Amino acid sequence: MTSIKHLLINAKKYDQKEFEIKAWVASNRGNTNIRFVEINDGSTIKNLQVVIKKEIMSFLEVDKIRLGAAIHVKGVLKYTPGMAQEIELNADKFILLKNTDEDFPIQKKETSLEALREIPHLRHRTTTLRAIMLIRSTLALEIHKFYNERGYLWVSSPIITGNDGEGAGESFVVDDESKDFFFNKKATLGVTGQLHAEAYALGFSKVYTFAPTFRAENSNTTKHAAEFWMMEPEVAFFDLKDLIKMSDDMLRQVIKRTVEAHPHEFEFFEKNKPGLLKNLNLFLNNKLSILEYREAIKILEKVKDRFEDKNIFFGKDLATEHEKYLAEKHIQGPVAVINYPKSFKAFYMFQNEDNETVAAYDLLVPGIGEVIGGSKRETRYEKLVQRVKDLKINQEDLQWYLDLRRFGQASSAGFGLGFERLIMYITGTENIRDTIPFPRTPKNMKM
Amino acid sequence: MTSIKHLLINAKKYDQKEFEIKAWVASNRGNTNIRFVEINDGSTIKNLQVVIKKEIMSFLEVDKIRLGAAIHVKGVLKYTPGMAQEIELNADKFILLKNTDEDFPIQKKETSLEALREIPHLRHRTTTLRAIMLIRSTLALEIHKFYNERGYLWVSSPIITGNDGEGAGESFVVDDESKDFFFNKKATLGVTGQLHAEAYALGFSKVYTFAPTFRAENSNTTKHAAEFWMMEPEVAFFDLKDLIKMSDDMLRQVIKRTVEAHPHEFEFFEKNKPGLLKNLNLFLNNKLSILEYREAIKILEKVKDRFEDKNIFFGKDLATEHEKYLAEKHIQGPVAVINYPKSFKAFYMFQNEDNETVAAYDLLVPGIGEVIGGSKRETRYEKLVQRVKDLKINQEDLQWYLDLRRFGQASSAGFGLGFERLIMYITGTENIRDTIPFPRTPKNMKM
Repeated sequence: MTSIKHLLINAKKYDQKEFEIKAWVASNRGNTNIRFVEINDGSTIKNLQVVIKKEIMSFLEVDKIRLGAAIHVKGVLKYTPGMAQEIELNADKFILLKNTDEDFPIQKKETSLEALREIPHLRHRTTTLRAIMLIRSTLALEIHKFYNERGYLWVSSPIITGNDGEGAGESFVVDDESKDFFFNKKATLGVTGQLHAEAYALGFSKVYTFAPTFRAENSNTTKHAAEFWMMEPEVAFFDLKDLIKMSDDMLRQVIKRTVEAHPHEFEFFEKNKPGLLKNLNLFLNNKLSILEYREAIKILEKVKDRFEDKNIFFGKDLATEHEKYLAEKHIQGPVAVINYPKSFKAFYMFQNEDNETVAAYDLLVPGIGEVIGGSKRETRYEKLVQRVKDLKINQEDLQWYLDLRRFGQASSAGFGLGFERLIMYITGTENIRDTIPFPRTPKNMKM
Repeated sequence: MTSIKHLLINAKKYDQKEFEIKAWVASNRGNTNIRFVEINDGSTIKNLQVVIKKEIMSFLEVDKIRLGAAIHVKGVLKYTPGMAQEIELNADKFILLKNTDEDFPIQKKETSLEALREIPHLRHRTTTLRAIMLIRSTLALEIHKFYNERGYLWVSSPIITGNDGEGAGESFVVDDESKDFFFNKKATLGVTGQLHAEAYALGFSKVYTFAPTFRAENSNTTKHAAEFWMMEPEVAFFDLKDLIKMSDDMLRQVIKRTVEAHPHEFEFFEKNKPGLLKNLNLFLNNKLSILEYREAIKILEKVKDRFEDKNIFFGKDLATEHEKYLAEKHIQGPVAVINYPKSFKAFYMFQNEDNETVAAYDLLVPGIGEVIGGSKRETRYEKLVQRVKDLKINQEDLQWYLDLRRFGQASSAGFGLGFERLIMYITGTENIRDTIPFPRTPKNMKM
């Protein structure tokens, strides 16, 4: 069986050759002399037009075929460059394998993304969701390839954990005294794989996680989900500069390769959101800028009247509107803001000499703001323990992590990339719920 | 910075060239004239021997360097084929970046795997665990590549779910009335991604999941973990025969490529478990056999006295000892046992015409028994609903899944591969706890 994508790529070569396809009906039209049934097999958003003549199948039978029906076609490919349909298939054999019931909800008439969220088991059979999910799959593979090519070890941080990643957010409780106490201690769903990844970077040098992470936060925004995938590389012997460069290299490579692999899908995204490709090219063709947080504050203060949140000061955690201003207006390209105040950053970040800031960075991109946040880790045992005490974090639970500093951890740096945020950025999708097959958000879990 | 693996691969070419490496100390010996410090950076299980002369570093300082310490070395590579060490590095510069404290538990003296399970954050710094985790990473990538090369979509089935995969086992409860009720309904951790993968195969034709799955079962065996990774392909239009062939092709390719990519690691596994490579080659070089369950029962009955469980009859779910006998003794190679009695198989499996069996299979391999279990799905709506009713499964929760049959699902087939089981098989590891970085089992969750 051949895929439609494969036929499209090899259209010229395959002209006048015979192929067999199994796929689903995307449209069904024609007249008393000829019928045109467009089919899609999910390999691309492009449909394949099948031409059916009377001799092949009774048109009374063709009339019964509804959108979404599974069919089996055998026919000769016709390469027609310059036409609306670059290829079509003249059916020699056309078999209805399984029809849809009349209440199949994916119909020609466009349905809103919001309505489609009610049917996550079916919505990928629309062009928009099909396109996004194709990109999701390619992007994931490109991330794996990028790291594998550079000798990184893929490591599985645990999902169920006794360490809930201090300060990263509320976590779901899987087990405690009120329940089975399966594990004999409180267990939550991991909000980050970083702490465990650090343990593995110490010994394997270069590692990355790519796995689901969880937040039990009541955030009903377009950017937050309770379950999402995160990619977290961690590299021994790296400092902040090395880390920023690696994240920049990674983003460029995976975006470039994904765009190249999906010409039809990106043509579609661009039509939906004109300027998307220009924005991506702005990223691909411009050097990453580096901006000190202190500088960023000065820049934002000068134009504070344009923001809803005008309260700009050293010690301020930037809001999305501030981040977007920096990337879109000030830099007009990607920018890494570095050396944030330690007051609102995590305990494990490397404390700079100024005693006020930590060696952390956020990578901001036009159109979305932060896509990556990372830091050099504090590997000086005494300093780290002091910070844990200052912040009143339970040291006992973290002792294994602190001990890494006593067991050969010279330096280490890593970042977290919210995978769905990256998909939003690349595809121009406005709501995170449309970038993951079965989204989980407060009061919302279907299937 | 160069990796030790890279130096080993290019040893001949790199003879007499200068390199810089950062790594950790694996041994430290020598005499008053010369010192030999073996280092490892995690890129391979092979250590690199660094030769230190007096002029480079005071031997008093060298004496202070403990196992596990992080060092930075610059030196000239010497290619010495035929020697115990194929390469060594003559240090021009040798810097101790960070020592270990005296209580660093990974020492020369071999520690039992059981004792190492107490320190999952450090145990990968032994040769055995390092080797296993290197294989784990390569194997995962090869699985992704196999499916990508064939146009499969990687799909994220949800982890938190309202469908707990009927009959697949006990699940962890994340949310219900007794808790936050974050989702407004009972939520558990997924025991399988299959149901959701089926929804995506319908539309994308070929998909696979690769993600963590969970069982809240009090099974304290060497083969069970509460958290493990599962890979589940699902293919529309496939029947059982196509599925078995694809699983066989997949196993052959990923095993072959993984073994080829890790000569040193497999040499080590073979030394630990003589015969391992012979067994793997038995698998790679022999055609997969197909055996009807009915036949298997007859075969087992004839030799039932050799089993602990001698109660062999049609309707019996085979135990590991039976599975191993079939693969190791009877077939002497991999075997797919097909068409199991429906009595102990899942509700969604295709009901054969004999009305007694379902189109399911288990792929059994020498040395371990089952590594894959799969089936053609029952896509006839009425038959499936009847089965759901017969088994007293709550139909309402599953209606979305049943509806796939009304919306163009002609046929579909898929299997589940326990990723850690595959690692056990390939590396000859006896306990699943040693194949995943931070294992979770009853009463046991570290970090």
